[in-house]
Amino acid sequence: MAKNFKYNRLDKNNAAVLLVDHQSGLTNLVKDFSPDDFKNNVLALADSAKYFNLPTILTTSFEDGPNGPLVPEIKAMFPDAPYIARPGQINAWDNDDFVQAVKATGKKQLLIAGIVTEVCVAFPALSALEEGFEVFVVTDASGTFNQTTRDAAWSRMEAAGAQLMSWFGVACELHRDWRNDVEGLATIFSNYLPAYRCLIQSYEAMLEAHKART
Amino acid sequence: MAKNFKYNRLDKNNAAVLLVDHQSGLTNLVKDFSPDDFKNNVLALADSAKYFNLPTILTTSFEDGPNGPLVPEIKAMFPDAPYIARPGQINAWDNDDFVQAVKATGKKQLLIAGIVTEVCVAFPALSALEEGFEVFVVTDASGTFNQTTRDAAWSRMEAAGAQLMSWFGVACELHRDWRNDVEGLATIFSNYLPAYRCLIQSYEAMLEAHKART
Amino acid sequence: MAKNFKYNRLDKNNAAVLLVDHQSGLTNLVKDFSPDDFKNNVLALADSAKYFNLPTILTTSFEDGPNGPLVPEIKAMFPDAPYIARPGQINAWDNDDFVQAVKATGKKQLLIAGIVTEVCVAFPALSALEEGFEVFVVTDASGTFNQTTRDAAWSRMEAAGAQLMSWFGVACELHRDWRNDVEGLATIFSNYLPAYRCLIQSYEAMLEAHKART
Amino acid sequence: MAKNFKYNRLDKNNAAVLLVDHQSGLTNLVKDFSPDDFKNNVLALADSAKYFNLPTILTTSFEDGPNGPLVPEIKAMFPDAPYIARPGQINAWDNDDFVQAVKATGKKQLLIAGIVTEVCVAFPALSALEEGFEVFVVTDASGTFNQTTRDAAWSRMEAAGAQLMSWFGVACELHRDWRNDVEGLATIFSNYLPAYRCLIQSYEAMLEAHKART
Amino acid sequence: MAKNFKYNRLDKNNAAVLLVDHQSGLTNLVKDFSPDDFKNNVLALADSAKYFNLPTILTTSFEDGPNGPLVPEIKAMFPDAPYIARPGQINAWDNDDFVQAVKATGKKQLLIAGIVTEVCVAFPALSALEEGFEVFVVTDASGTFNQTTRDAAWSRMEAAGAQLMSWFGVACELHRDWRNDVEGLATIFSNYLPAYRCLIQSYEAMLEAHKART
Amino acid sequence: MAKNFKYNRLDKNNAAVLLVDHQSGLTNLVKDFSPDDFKNNVLALADSAKYFNLPTILTTSFEDGPNGPLVPEIKAMFPDAPYIARPGQINAWDNDDFVQAVKATGKKQLLIAGIVTEVCVAFPALSALEEGFEVFVVTDASGTFNQTTRDAAWSRMEAAGAQLMSWFGVACELHRDWRNDVEGLATIFSNYLPAYRCLIQSYEAMLEAHKART
Amino acid sequence: MAKNFKYNRLDKNNAAVLLVDHQSGLTNLVKDFSPDDFKNNVLALADSAKYFNLPTILTTSFEDGPNGPLVPEIKAMFPDAPYIARPGQINAWDNDDFVQAVKATGKKQLLIAGIVTEVCVAFPALSALEEGFEVFVVTDASGTFNQTTRDAAWSRMEAAGAQLMSWFGVACELHRDWRNDVEGLATIFSNYLPAYRCLIQSYEAMLEAHKART
Amino acid sequence: MAKNFKYNRLDKNNAAVLLVDHQSGLTNLVKDFSPDDFKNNVLALADSAKYFNLPTILTTSFEDGPNGPLVPEIKAMFPDAPYIARPGQINAWDNDDFVQAVKATGKKQLLIAGIVTEVCVAFPALSALEEGFEVFVVTDASGTFNQTTRDAAWSRMEAAGAQLMSWFGVACELHRDWRNDVEGLATIFSNYLPAYRCLIQSYEAMLEAHKART
Repeated sequence: MAKNFKYNRLDKNNAAVLLVDHQSGLTNLVKDFSPDDFKNNVLALADSAKYFNLPTILTTSFEDGPNGPLVPEIKAMFPDAPYIARPGQINAWDNDDFVQAVKATGKKQLLIAGIVTEVCVAFPALSALEEGFEVFVVTDASGTFNQTTRDAAWSRMEAAGAQLMSWFGVACELHRDWRNDVEGLATIFSNYLPAYRCLIQSYEAMLEAHKART
Repeated sequence: MAKNFKYNRLDKNNAAVLLVDHQSGLTNLVKDFSPDDFKNNVLALADSAKYFNLPTILTTSFEDGPNGPLVPEIKAMFPDAPYIARPGQINAWDNDDFVQAVKATGKKQLLIAGIVTEVCVAFPALSALEEGFEVFVVTDASGTFNQTTRDAAWSRMEAAGAQLMSWFGVACELHRDWRNDVEGLATIFSNYLPAYRCLIQSYEAMLEAHKART
Repeated sequence: MAKNFKYNRLDKNNAAVLLVDHQSGLTNLVKDFSPDDFKNNVLALADSAKYFNLPTILTTSFEDGPNGPLVPEIKAMFPDAPYIARPGQINAWDNDDFVQAVKATGKKQLLIAGIVTEVCVAFPALSALEEGFEVFVVTDASGTFNQTTRDAAWSRMEAAGAQLMSWFGVACELHRDWRNDVEGLATIFSNYLPAYRCLIQSYEAMLEAHKART
Repeated sequence: MAKNFKYNRLDKNNAAVLLVDHQSGLTNLVKDFSPDDFKNNVLALADSAKYFNLPTILTTSFEDGPNGPLVPEIKAMFPDAPYIARPGQINAWDNDDFVQAVKATGKKQLLIAGIVTEVCVAFPALSALEEGFEVFVVTDASGTFNQTTRDAAWSRMEAAGAQLMSWFGVACELHRDWRNDVEGLATIFSNYLPAYRCLIQSYEAMLEAHKART
Repeated sequence: MAKNFKYNRLDKNNAAVLLVDHQSGLTNLVKDFSPDDFKNNVLALADSAKYFNLPTILTTSFEDGPNGPLVPEIKAMFPDAPYIARPGQINAWDNDDFVQAVKATGKKQLLIAGIVTEVCVAFPALSALEEGFEVFVVTDASGTFNQTTRDAAWSRMEAAGAQLMSWFGVACELHRDWRNDVEGLATIFSNYLPAYRCLIQSYEAMLEAHKART
Repeated sequence: MAKNFKYNRLDKNNAAVLLVDHQSGLTNLVKDFSPDDFKNNVLALADSAKYFNLPTILTTSFEDGPNGPLVPEIKAMFPDAPYIARPGQINAWDNDDFVQAVKATGKKQLLIAGIVTEVCVAFPALSALEEGFEVFVVTDASGTFNQTTRDAAWSRMEAAGAQLMSWFGVACELHRDWRNDVEGLATIFSNYLPAYRCLIQSYEAMLEAHKART
Repeated sequence: MAKNFKYNRLDKNNAAVLLVDHQSGLTNLVKDFSPDDFKNNVLALADSAKYFNLPTILTTSFEDGPNGPLVPEIKAMFPDAPYIARPGQINAWDNDDFVQAVKATGKKQLLIAGIVTEVCVAFPALSALEEGFEVFVVTDASGTFNQTTRDAAWSRMEAAGAQLMSWFGVACELHRDWRNDVEGLATIFSNYLPAYRCLIQSYEAMLEAHKART
Repeated sequence: MAKNFKYNRLDKNNAAVLLVDHQSGLTNLVKDFSPDDFKNNVLALADSAKYFNLPTILTTSFEDGPNGPLVPEIKAMFPDAPYIARPGQINAWDNDDFVQAVKATGKKQLLIAGIVTEVCVAFPALSALEEGFEVFVVTDASGTFNQTTRDAAWSRMEAAGAQLMSWFGVACELHRDWRNDVEGLATIFSNYLPAYRCLIQSYEAMLEAHKART
């Protein structure tokens, strides 16, 4: 079965991030995550992209209308990123500026997240796969109307060869080795994994307590 | 993995819709959606089919018996559509009139929805795949007895090459670009996505408020 | 236990309906119902109120801001109802106009629904109970952020003496006897209970089939 | 807290069973149980009523219309029971024949089950409580549209003094002591509790195996 | 994708049923179905096998020990079926008598169900696939410890080429056309699909009512 | 509301534990907990009872039949406890030996757990409340057929004045102050709360690491 | 029923907040909320307490051991708050310093949250109720091992007269009227209700867009 | 479909077990299992590895920091196993010592379990697949942050050719035939499958009872 499997790991020198339609209005359509979880996951992905200096491309659909503006926190994180406000194309890949921006990065591994999963994520994912890119869907930074729709969307992308990941898996696969920067990775974990933050807090409290005693 | 993937998008000039056994009695067997959600999804698909002028074929099984009549709202939407009341075939594809009606459309992409998923949807889906059609299952306009049965049915169709979609994904992939008709697509979204309707209402209220002020 | 229980049924001559903050923006905060279910339930309650000619009072909070306008469908249903756009009071009962409108109805049974349950419903419900009104919370036309919050809100209102109902229970308790107007009640059920509508459709189809035969 | 609690146990000489609107059409509206579970529970209650010779009263609402006939299995079990086909009253207690039939039993403990919980069960339950009956709702032989509606209905009945039970609890509280009829009770358990049936089967197989050896 | 898909439908002349370890003790380990649902599904499959005269093979593991006897209802349904009480082999396919019984049927399509899914079903399923049989797992007549284990087991079998079905899908695919025996199929549906039974009851009641009137 | 509330805390000098029908056969009927969770909770309660030297009374129903023997681990923990194998009474309180054993403890606070919740727990709980005992139901060491049945049983006991607790709450309320025996309580937590055990393990590892360094 | 109900609303001049054992180790035992949700809710309550200048009391249990330190974010928010590191008392109310700190506030309404719900919240809640305080449990800023344990804990506190609330309900009931400080309340909502933040973002974007146009 | 399927069963002479990062701190991050279930599953896998004498390799990540020590129970079970405390590599397969230890076993079938699934399990699984090993993920002895993340991780590993199993399936596939050692396998089942333990207890009690009688 696994005969010819080739593990093309995420490589920070060969990966770009596409954030598709994380807009304020659309975000409130997302019901397959709690709002806290979803906000956390999206910012975690964005912050990881920044941390690893991955070229990041922002795109929106009709941000002057009901869909609302790009979530300002994301905009603020990537002031110099290509930002394509699509005039109408639903599939971001149908927008030449977007595709050019993607290709201009020279990267072959695309991390895609967006709202909603079965459209704004799936359509460009399938288009990119067709053009030979490796596609990694960041599932927990992508949201949609309900679980049924999500399951169907995952199935379609998976069948086409996309790999389903989480922002945490992405960060770990990019980082490879804690020794590349222990503090940097730990900061991301601490900021976006409250349970891991607690582990760190307990650990540090104990360190201090023992320093105090000795 | 994704080597030879070819993204054959849904094309409004090459797609037909098959609505299989959406009958009043059978609808009450559906338990993997709330009744409100299911009614909404089925009508959303039907209305989308109409909006895109997709050839649509209706079929029923024993509508004079316990299965009940074709849901009248659907019948009313497609007064001129081929309507095959099957005399006994469980798999609609075993009915020559049905297959002829499908082939008469000249389309190669079939959107299939029906009740119940593992029979009325899966059987014709597998038959159509065998004959070389591209099959897109509209998962949220198809219902069945419970989640376990649905999961198994999805798996079988997926393994055979069917693509799992939702009515919303279908509408978006067919429309391609909002500019083809902003109002038309927005009307469908407004009618069948209550959360999107709310976004529009908030937006329009604000527009008016500001017009009033200026 | 049940010693002194007095069953004060909902009485269409003694009941008023308070719809609190069913606004477009706030509606998208509701996550304890699917959007289809919630829209259906709210409209079902509103339509029932209209059908039974219950005095209905509308109120909103900051409808020119992020909370959005009163859902237009509701506004359209009650063009002449008292409509109190509260300038700031969170508890509608803190607004004198609102309380006067309630008292002007002369009714002692208050049906309350709104968004969000633990605030816009619970606060006026508790205030009304304190003033001796009988309070019936229409639970499925009231929504909030999540199930945990809802459970806590229900518990608080219940402990204070509010009765928890659904729009369907309300309609049935008000109507008392089908013979008062079979068609009227059936129309409400048909419009807002898709599963009941299917029962009616199957029944009517069969009636016609048999008429045709005889 | 429990100061004045009096445990009026179910007493087979003082209990009657009211089966309200277990009709074929209405049964298909029930979505808070799987169809298998619900069918099992309703028949288990009916069979228990029969086993303990409890006076049982049947009533239906519009059984010639969409609501459908009384489930035939129940009808067959109680050929001589009072059977009140209500001409329109939604609350069975509003029907004089029904109330007379209840009072004619001379029992003070009423076991009530029906479809749907918040109406056909709750309304007569509240009426009976008001008249001083002890009311025991057989929760798992009563069904409704969804879990939210059920929770609200339980809360309302509970606050009025109704006791919430299951058919199994009812059977056990009525039987009191296995020695009254070991085989009789075991038969009911075996027929309606598949897991208990399995325990019996394993036990009996072992008994036989050992008899065979000795 | 679906290029070379060949739809080998279940064929009643080419299918055999393997019921693996449906024993009383083991049944009580099943927690991914309610006991009522599981009992119903297993008997529905067994009854369908009988109805279509499919060769059926029974096998058990240690039925004199804690695993308990083959569920007596199944034993009674197939008095003449090959019955292999395995002396120790966990994978039934490791038992020569079992494999010979399977091969003696001359059928190439195997319907497999059993307890527990990831062992008693998956192991012979994988063995049979390796020998070139077509394998159809009857998922809802197979049970295991929990949902996680089930999901993993389904995935493993699916990847090996097994098709996941439900007993209802099996019955429908075998029957092909209602006209082959309307009453026979309806009887199975009525006995094992309580919701379908209700549709039939409503229909028949109406028929009789109208006969009475005319 | 809380006017006259008196907080009678669990008092280790005034509490007894009743373990009702924790038998091997009956345990396999429990489906409202995973088997691991339930086993853990029951042993945690038993071990706590032992730790606090609470008089503990064991009782079983038909342990020579399908219900199976008292779980041997429990039997082994309380070799000298009163052990009442009831000859037939379903409500343990109907057995004079049992009641005498309870009264012989001289305690007024009864901790009750058992299988199944709505019968073996609820019946003696209600009987004990009637006789003026304070009753604390150990909810997570009591199991039953499903969540619906459990909810109804809790409601009935709650309305009668029973207090719903967990084994952990019981242990903490009995212990009052860690300083009474830090190690003893920590051992119980470590043995029956795997997550707490992990906290301890991390803590101790760190302590050792630092000792090693200093 | 509601006869004598008195609605003692939360009053910012009469309320104090007790944060009990929100420690890093214990936080990781919480499994009835996602970590993101729980962190968000606890900080939302703390921030609300600060915003309304409510006297706030911090207490911990064994913070030098496995339970871990008080979550540093909370410590930083309340540098001058009474901080009682309990030497062993499990019920914070058993610690005289704690009770004195509570009484020193002179407030009669106590908002309590903590980890775990059935112990660290419930015990002081019951003690405070006994002494005549009004107790409001902030349910979503309190966490525990699982949903079952939580349900039981809620029930016990509710029966004793505690009111169950959410942090959002608390903030709204304290604020009373938006006009007291629109921006202040909006900031809290924006920071801790991501879905509300999105409403604000959409609104503000639109305002700016229209300003730009005019 | 299943054309070329080759069933390479787990072979106790060709399998090794990799336990990756089962550390105390990390264990408390796991939320897709209850703590009791997860502890049970991990120990069940470890004990099975020991029982079958499978070479087992332990590895940890930063065990002196917040991640905590290797769970001591596991450490104690395998005192002589290769134990690789990785200095920083996130993917264990990036650590030469680890890979050498794996290869030194000479086995081609790798059973992998760890925390968290999408990283500590998935990364070495994909690396091992690439090198031609057969990989069996022990899904229920592997845990992660939530169900969504798990689903994505399973999908990625599955697509690469890993087989998803449970510890129970592993034990059964390795054992092949009960007769190889009835008591040994039964002991594992009894220790880690509480429901199976109950079956054994009932069986043994009955055996003894009958011995006593004869």
